[in-house]
Amino acid sequence: MALIVQKYGGTSVGSVERIQSVSERIISAQQQGHDVVVAVSAMAGETNRLMSLANQISEAPEPRELDMLLSAGEQVSIALLAMSLNQKGVKAISLTADQAGIYTNCTFNDATIEHIETDLITQWVDKGYVVIIAGFQGRDVHGNITTLGRGGSDTTAVALSAALNADECQIFTDVDGVYSSDPRYVANTRRLKEVSFSDMHLLAKSGAKVLQEHSVAHAWRTSVKLRVLSSFEEGEGTLICEEPEESPSVTGLALKQDLLLVECTGLSITEQAALLKQYEELTAQSGCFKIVVPKATFLQLKLAFNTKIRNISSLSILTLVGDKVEGMADLACNQLKANGVDIYQHNKEPKSVSVIVNQADLEQAAEILHKTFVITEQSQDNNLMIAVS
Amino acid sequence: MALIVQKYGGTSVGSVERIQSVSERIISAQQQGHDVVVAVSAMAGETNRLMSLANQISEAPEPRELDMLLSAGEQVSIALLAMSLNQKGVKAISLTADQAGIYTNCTFNDATIEHIETDLITQWVDKGYVVIIAGFQGRDVHGNITTLGRGGSDTTAVALSAALNADECQIFTDVDGVYSSDPRYVANTRRLKEVSFSDMHLLAKSGAKVLQEHSVAHAWRTSVKLRVLSSFEEGEGTLICEEPEESPSVTGLALKQDLLLVECTGLSITEQAALLKQYEELTAQSGCFKIVVPKATFLQLKLAFNTKIRNISSLSILTLVGDKVEGMADLACNQLKANGVDIYQHNKEPKSVSVIVNQADLEQAAEILHKTFVITEQSQDNNLMIAVS
Repeated sequence: MALIVQKYGGTSVGSVERIQSVSERIISAQQQGHDVVVAVSAMAGETNRLMSLANQISEAPEPRELDMLLSAGEQVSIALLAMSLNQKGVKAISLTADQAGIYTNCTFNDATIEHIETDLITQWVDKGYVVIIAGFQGRDVHGNITTLGRGGSDTTAVALSAALNADECQIFTDVDGVYSSDPRYVANTRRLKEVSFSDMHLLAKSGAKVLQEHSVAHAWRTSVKLRVLSSFEEGEGTLICEEPEESPSVTGLALKQDLLLVECTGLSITEQAALLKQYEELTAQSGCFKIVVPKATFLQLKLAFNTKIRNISSLSILTLVGDKVEGMADLACNQLKANGVDIYQHNKEPKSVSVIVNQADLEQAAEILHKTFVITEQSQDNNLMIAVS
Repeated sequence: MALIVQKYGGTSVGSVERIQSVSERIISAQQQGHDVVVAVSAMAGETNRLMSLANQISEAPEPRELDMLLSAGEQVSIALLAMSLNQKGVKAISLTADQAGIYTNCTFNDATIEHIETDLITQWVDKGYVVIIAGFQGRDVHGNITTLGRGGSDTTAVALSAALNADECQIFTDVDGVYSSDPRYVANTRRLKEVSFSDMHLLAKSGAKVLQEHSVAHAWRTSVKLRVLSSFEEGEGTLICEEPEESPSVTGLALKQDLLLVECTGLSITEQAALLKQYEELTAQSGCFKIVVPKATFLQLKLAFNTKIRNISSLSILTLVGDKVEGMADLACNQLKANGVDIYQHNKEPKSVSVIVNQADLEQAAEILHKTFVITEQSQDNNLMIAVS
């Protein structure tokens, strides 16, 4: 008998039907003899609906009031999920983050969990209840409702797992695990059975969307075993832990898109310093100062710097992650160049190698790197394991 | 400078545009030098939308979880209203009922406010903030969210007024005051400038919809001056207080519809007693036991009593309310009979006279009673007042 914390995202509870099947999944864990605590997001679309109401009133709504507004979303989903379990004869109770004792700092819209007073949760668990807790939200020391920023339900689940000393934190999502790369762009990706915290953290930081970077860091710091599972189909998913049994030389290839190459001219030293503090600089070419910025922030920069900056092209970054990728940097670059892919820059770290290429070359470059390094290396590892065992 | 508690119902905050105009109305009260505390309902349609989600899961959702669910509705409207005020440069803060310290008993779905810890509200008022509080909800002693039953925001406003010792409790709604009768059925109704608590209580109890019976009783008990005002147009509305300056002999005519005359046969003594405890008995005619029940509860009764009860016809009750109506009972009945209206029964109380008629006769009967007693008496009173002054 273990204590499991499960997290269901917005898509998983996006309709009454899906809430019903989530409750079946919870019941199945309970029937295996586990105590279950659940963190739930707002129903898919609800946060956007509420945000759009707020934006009809103000382009920049008061942060405290925005948190009051958005947190209503999870209140709906936790109540419906508890009702669904009750209806199926299972004892369940929903708790807002305030009721569950999730204390955060006072940073509205982007709060950090400081501690969780777990007494009430534990009381209900001890009485045999499934405890359903609103994800993404907390309360500050003054009793105000805060939110952890979008997607913060993963963080809630990890923090609950750490505070409750749970045996596993299961993140249910719309894919059935962590893949060796993004299947939308790369052929023959494979689901990873286990990934180390450090590799997963690098993958998330480099653009893998399945888990949030901060949640992985939090789980790593607090030694919370994470498992990524599909809400829609059975399977054992991917386990993220300190020391995976399976440890290939190359774990995966992460893709980061929607970046712009921006050329800056006539900036003051202070302006340059401000930009370099926040954005990556590309190696100066022909005396020109260039940075890479996310598409989403370009308009904001344009307002601040006007004609001093201009967008040159769309970029992508591809990052190979794994214990032995560092030595593969030159080979990777050569392979890409041989296939006609221009490389703006490459970076080498102890456990990662990344290349910056034109957005238009993303799919070709990803295909080459994945085929050459990820599949090959993982197959060799597998063969090695078979030979050894 | 006064402390005003205002209450805005679901229609008044039914869209972003309406929320914007509500905030203008609040600002106008503040500009008159008043401190303003506001109780707000969920946006029109929201409670029904949430209820329908719950009913897709269960016909009888867990009461605690239903309150968790429904209370999300007001959380949205208070946040949007506070944002709207902020956007217009006015300091405003929203508080859930829990944050505002509104304590109720533990009766989910139909809780009663027990006391309000006003410290936090008062602190914000003293700092010059408009305090926007979620209506219709509270918290019990265990920290669970409760609701006061549908339409309970009036009760919240009255309870806040009493606890804060407010100078006036203003109920904003979709009509501009209390009328001498329901304008949808009766011609030449007039808005009453002032009504006594006792008359208003009788009118509400007898079917006038503008204010809830319980809220009026609560205001009366705690001596909270109520004013009914329109959210959509300017005006001074109707003041409900202990001793109105204007006190006509007949205050108004209330209409209660959607009642059924139900014939009961073969009931045991216990069954009869149970029914009579809850429903009004009509004078026995030809040895038959008949009761009057609201249409909404008939199905439920039918399930319990099966063929022992049957619905004979649809009824309405018309009630004249005022200091001197008692002596008008016979005249009222005669007037109706002379015009061909059948009367099933009439009741005389110190300050009210009611008649039960066929639903089909409602409009004709209402027109006769309003014309003969309400308009005439009120005009005479007005003439008298003019003559005296």
